[in-house]
Amino acid sequence: MSELLATYLLTNPGSDCENRAEQIATGLTVGSWTDLPLLKQEQLQKHKGRVVSVEEKEGALESEKQAVITIAYPEINFTYDIPAVLTTVFGKLSLDGKIKLTDLEFSEGFKQRLPGPKFGAYGIRKALGVFERPLLMSIFKGVIGRNLEDIKDQLRQQALGGVDLIKDDEIFFETDLAPFETRITEGRQVLRETYEQTGHKTLYAVNLTGRTADLKDKARRAAELGADALLFNVYAYGLDVMQSLAEDSEVSVPIMAHPAVSGAFTSSPYYGFAHALLLGKLNRYCGADFSLFPSPYGSVALPKEDALAIHDECVREDSFQQTFAVPSAGIHPGLVPLLMKDFGIDHVINAGGGIHGHPNGAQGGGKAFRAIMDAVLEAQSPDEKAEQCNDLKLALDKWGKVDAV
Amino acid sequence: MSELLATYLLTNPGSDCENRAEQIATGLTVGSWTDLPLLKQEQLQKHKGRVVSVEEKEGALESEKQAVITIAYPEINFTYDIPAVLTTVFGKLSLDGKIKLTDLEFSEGFKQRLPGPKFGAYGIRKALGVFERPLLMSIFKGVIGRNLEDIKDQLRQQALGGVDLIKDDEIFFETDLAPFETRITEGRQVLRETYEQTGHKTLYAVNLTGRTADLKDKARRAAELGADALLFNVYAYGLDVMQSLAEDSEVSVPIMAHPAVSGAFTSSPYYGFAHALLLGKLNRYCGADFSLFPSPYGSVALPKEDALAIHDECVREDSFQQTFAVPSAGIHPGLVPLLMKDFGIDHVINAGGGIHGHPNGAQGGGKAFRAIMDAVLEAQSPDEKAEQCNDLKLALDKWGKVDAV
Repeated sequence: MSELLATYLLTNPGSDCENRAEQIATGLTVGSWTDLPLLKQEQLQKHKGRVVSVEEKEGALESEKQAVITIAYPEINFTYDIPAVLTTVFGKLSLDGKIKLTDLEFSEGFKQRLPGPKFGAYGIRKALGVFERPLLMSIFKGVIGRNLEDIKDQLRQQALGGVDLIKDDEIFFETDLAPFETRITEGRQVLRETYEQTGHKTLYAVNLTGRTADLKDKARRAAELGADALLFNVYAYGLDVMQSLAEDSEVSVPIMAHPAVSGAFTSSPYYGFAHALLLGKLNRYCGADFSLFPSPYGSVALPKEDALAIHDECVREDSFQQTFAVPSAGIHPGLVPLLMKDFGIDHVINAGGGIHGHPNGAQGGGKAFRAIMDAVLEAQSPDEKAEQCNDLKLALDKWGKVDAV
Repeated sequence: MSELLATYLLTNPGSDCENRAEQIATGLTVGSWTDLPLLKQEQLQKHKGRVVSVEEKEGALESEKQAVITIAYPEINFTYDIPAVLTTVFGKLSLDGKIKLTDLEFSEGFKQRLPGPKFGAYGIRKALGVFERPLLMSIFKGVIGRNLEDIKDQLRQQALGGVDLIKDDEIFFETDLAPFETRITEGRQVLRETYEQTGHKTLYAVNLTGRTADLKDKARRAAELGADALLFNVYAYGLDVMQSLAEDSEVSVPIMAHPAVSGAFTSSPYYGFAHALLLGKLNRYCGADFSLFPSPYGSVALPKEDALAIHDECVREDSFQQTFAVPSAGIHPGLVPLLMKDFGIDHVINAGGGIHGHPNGAQGGGKAFRAIMDAVLEAQSPDEKAEQCNDLKLALDKWGKVDAV
């Protein structure tokens, strides 16, 4: 009998954790147990939740006790969709004291009904022809209220710096100045020109926004128009919505999942979801080709162990293709040695200010990043590389460098 | 120029709250400001966020400082949908330290694009012919794995006790034993029979579940089959999905919003959303005819001020019809005087164990609730009423009574 395993972190769960775990396993499945007649127990046995493990431990604060509890929920109780899973394992329970959902383990049968990334990290690498280094992405800067010419110019400058990917700002919605479809077609034209000029290919992720009911048609239209990738604020919608986009064969475009709004349900150490579960495992299972999350280095930062755990979930051996982890915010060229030490080569280095704030503009920023990536791969010191590349020198002078220790 | 006002509670926001507020207002709109040339500033002025107020205060803990900040976001920056709103006002910001979104104030123009409840509290009252008391709802108990006959029998027993509404358990999904459409048609038949027997009308809220893309068709089919109401786990999907159901004229059925999963983003005092915003205002604006939330009385309880604030948002003067507030969990007949003191007559009294755990079963439970509601309305003491109604006496003996002070 297939089961879904859910692991929770409970803080100050009371004196009898075994009993609390049993209450969860029973209460969220058959409702009650010991007061049922034997015949009913036999009928309902296959529906009853099961306590897999209970482990008590000390909390972060001296006054805290914590418990890690794993419950197995029979799959027969629900349907194979994420809203049913969340409602079962963390519906009522999310309201019941200090409890955080830290992991879900799906059966192979369930996984077969989830899409995973349609392209995955390797598919993106093939599209770009880049296999042996992290990818480099940059973000538009201050696009609200700007017209199409401004946006095209930003796109061009970024591409000429040698970035592999350029993404819309997540707060950029439909606007008469630069509508979705126009951004796709005009963006393609700009990137065709820069490719002809430099021989370097750059993909542009356009922000898929609007009402839920309209997204699929809009995404199909984007695919028809030749969009390179879709940025998607999955947590302003729902994982099931992203899953539908990933499942749709006509949406033949990679999906870049943005973490907007997710802080509302991952930030607390006591409530909500673990970062690695939401931004790692569930993003990957539900079809994100890229998953953005706060890097551990900037002012908007995750604890390093959380950021690394997201990356682990994106790349570890599983039934699905790998998702490109994109640790974002606070990234400048001087951080690259540390980034590559922490996240290896299978991730995307993503910068906003670290590209646009370069003394030589976005072009200089991109070149500085590319140069220091090369240096790391060639085991050359950043300072030595900076002597050959003035853009890198200017970047290191401005932002400094961080030792990869 | 129309604006959307967002209010945040920041904990330990740093020494310069005015500056932090200005950073939010600029960063989430035009990106930067003081370094822009004057001409650009003129062009972008109408897109720039505005700090409405900054109020510093002491936090709950001695070591905490807090600030309440209200920012006005120009509507021109986004589209009129909830995902765009959430991404704008609480996208990146939700990831940026201890910050909680406590309120949103929509312009009249924006409100005109939101549906509000299709029926509202008054529409539900008209359907039932009950105007001068709280409604009484009961919940199925232990339905997973039960067959249709079990479910029909539970429905009958609950209806015969005189409840006005009966809802599916939120963890009850599609099952061969009692599929969605069958529950609607067979449930109607049972409730027709009990109505013929007692003259009391009862509505049954069936759980609308499945993939997001299928919900609208499924809801329309439910309407065709004459479903009384749809239970909906809105926070396992998204507010925009509920809004679409509320907007659809063919989904001519009241929507009962369940708070499943919402604890993940309302429970923390530092992160996520205020209860009243999510389970009160946004549920109402996006079309919930009923909003369930934890009562302040049981073991799964909200702080009383939060529960009352949700109720306030459900009923206060606004462009929309009223939503029926349904404070749930831990409700027994002895609590009714307090419930009616706290929530008045415009709410739904909702019980599970307090109905089914009655010594005379669900029928006795329903009758006990109805009797004590009558007593409160007639200014009769519960004990006096219990002398006339044995079911009430048994209930008060079992659960005790709580003074309405």
